[in-house]
Amino acid sequence: MSIKIGILGYGNLARGVESAITQNDDLELAAVFTRRDPAAVRIRTEGVPVFSQDKLEEDGMKDLIDVLIICGGSATDLPVQTPKYAELYNVVDSFDTHANIPAHFANVDAAAKKGGHVGIISCGWDPGMFSLNRLYMNCILPEGKDYTFWGKGVSQGHSDAVRRIDGVLDARQYTIPVEEAVKSVRRGENPELTTIEKHTRECFVVAAEGADLARIEHDIKTMPNYFDEYDTTVYFISAEEMQRHHAGLPHGGNVIRCGVTGMDKEHTHVIEYSLKLDSNPEFTGSVLAAYARAIARMSAEGRTGAVTVFDVAPAYLSAQDPAGLRAHLL
Amino acid sequence: MSIKIGILGYGNLARGVESAITQNDDLELAAVFTRRDPAAVRIRTEGVPVFSQDKLEEDGMKDLIDVLIICGGSATDLPVQTPKYAELYNVVDSFDTHANIPAHFANVDAAAKKGGHVGIISCGWDPGMFSLNRLYMNCILPEGKDYTFWGKGVSQGHSDAVRRIDGVLDARQYTIPVEEAVKSVRRGENPELTTIEKHTRECFVVAAEGADLARIEHDIKTMPNYFDEYDTTVYFISAEEMQRHHAGLPHGGNVIRCGVTGMDKEHTHVIEYSLKLDSNPEFTGSVLAAYARAIARMSAEGRTGAVTVFDVAPAYLSAQDPAGLRAHLL
Repeated sequence: MSIKIGILGYGNLARGVESAITQNDDLELAAVFTRRDPAAVRIRTEGVPVFSQDKLEEDGMKDLIDVLIICGGSATDLPVQTPKYAELYNVVDSFDTHANIPAHFANVDAAAKKGGHVGIISCGWDPGMFSLNRLYMNCILPEGKDYTFWGKGVSQGHSDAVRRIDGVLDARQYTIPVEEAVKSVRRGENPELTTIEKHTRECFVVAAEGADLARIEHDIKTMPNYFDEYDTTVYFISAEEMQRHHAGLPHGGNVIRCGVTGMDKEHTHVIEYSLKLDSNPEFTGSVLAAYARAIARMSAEGRTGAVTVFDVAPAYLSAQDPAGLRAHLL
Repeated sequence: MSIKIGILGYGNLARGVESAITQNDDLELAAVFTRRDPAAVRIRTEGVPVFSQDKLEEDGMKDLIDVLIICGGSATDLPVQTPKYAELYNVVDSFDTHANIPAHFANVDAAAKKGGHVGIISCGWDPGMFSLNRLYMNCILPEGKDYTFWGKGVSQGHSDAVRRIDGVLDARQYTIPVEEAVKSVRRGENPELTTIEKHTRECFVVAAEGADLARIEHDIKTMPNYFDEYDTTVYFISAEEMQRHHAGLPHGGNVIRCGVTGMDKEHTHVIEYSLKLDSNPEFTGSVLAAYARAIARMSAEGRTGAVTVFDVAPAYLSAQDPAGLRAHLL
């Protein structure tokens, strides 16, 4: 019997989840829920209804949905939505405001326990697969140091920040790891790296006709938190170039840990996990889909409350039975 | 309270476990067990007793040991030792004969359930961390293909095989991935690779005085299963060169999966996990130590039977509490 998935929201990430579901025979998209007018939302899976999100609070929905994947933003949507719906459904979210994870976890945990459900928060690749790898690396090599590099990839938050500058019509920001820094870490040199030494930033900007380009460039490069601590390069391009060369949402990065072993710490080891993604939202959606399977199973076993990727035994993610996994993947 | 570890055997892997224990404050080496004369075994941790392995069957030992890490060989030791001691202790082994994993799992499972213990088999890096990564990659990108490359590193099995050739005094065999193959996989080309296209082999050989070097080289290159399907290069060196340049046991490798997502499979993603290890036995020993912690906890929670790395939730591996992990590593 397949696991029935509901998706809340229908932006890039939700569409990534939708396409991931088509690649997993045991998952089935049951419905999409939106805060917009459902009649105005056209989804790509045929025969699947689109409902108003209010419908999630109706009793009949509970039989339709085994797991609700919540595809809202971390700033204002998820802190409200995930606890609210964790009381009613098994839920998955991709909450990524690292500093607020403990509070969000506590809220989802209380709601999920109250409703007898399981909720996994902060799923995706960072937080998510990168976190998992940091954990495994730290446990295997307790004496060492790890580094996370992001990119080359589009940062949506930074792109949005540039778009808010007066005179900017469109913008795309790429985060780029500094190659020499990555190589030094890979060589096991455990360098001390400042922010500017780890990543550079590139902005492609479509400016309004007659806009003061020098002022825009200055506003970008001095923007606090977003750009002021980085080497940033700004390119002004046409709307057509933006569409032709910068329509995608690629991303990726590396987590690298270098550590020592031996009675005299005489041996060095380097563990690296890396991602090269053509589509950040589709890859993230694929991670959410796999964890939806996992929490459907954990819920069926009677588990309740909030969990993270740290709490999910890897076998729960797979559609294959444990004996098959041992025979073919171990 | 620390977790008391027993080690069975005292070869390279056991010494790797011993040094890993010194790096984990919550683990404590309680005793080493050997089939040799205990008086002849000098271990590197002060104040820890060495016992005959027969002592493992005495009742008093059960209070001394929370987890027994069994450091025997996969060919003849572990198939006997792990089921035998799983009835008496929580056990960890690094059984690596892939084809026999299902049978070994069944034997350990029955014994561990009978004794009320947990036994984890096939722990290390392959099987082990490589298997884990294959599993995660397959679950996230169900449509794709994965590749495992080993090396550059010393293969003990191949080194032993060369040493058995008449006229060979000592030998070291390095397995080396073919760089062009690795690059093609990383580029997402999903190449079809034959055995010879994935790895080459290099042998460093110390020959007896007057030995027929051409015959030794021929015997190596044509050895069935070990070398006949590979491009193998043989170097004859002096015993002194062997000692100076080839005393270590480095290893490593890469697991790479390339897969597609999207309604039209239009996006490609590459996930890679790689290891560069100065000391294969010390790294493997470090993995075994972390999983010893995990199964001590699973046993304390009442779990029994055999498990593999697939069944262990990542948080069990860490000495940090779950809230700390969420705050610092997620």
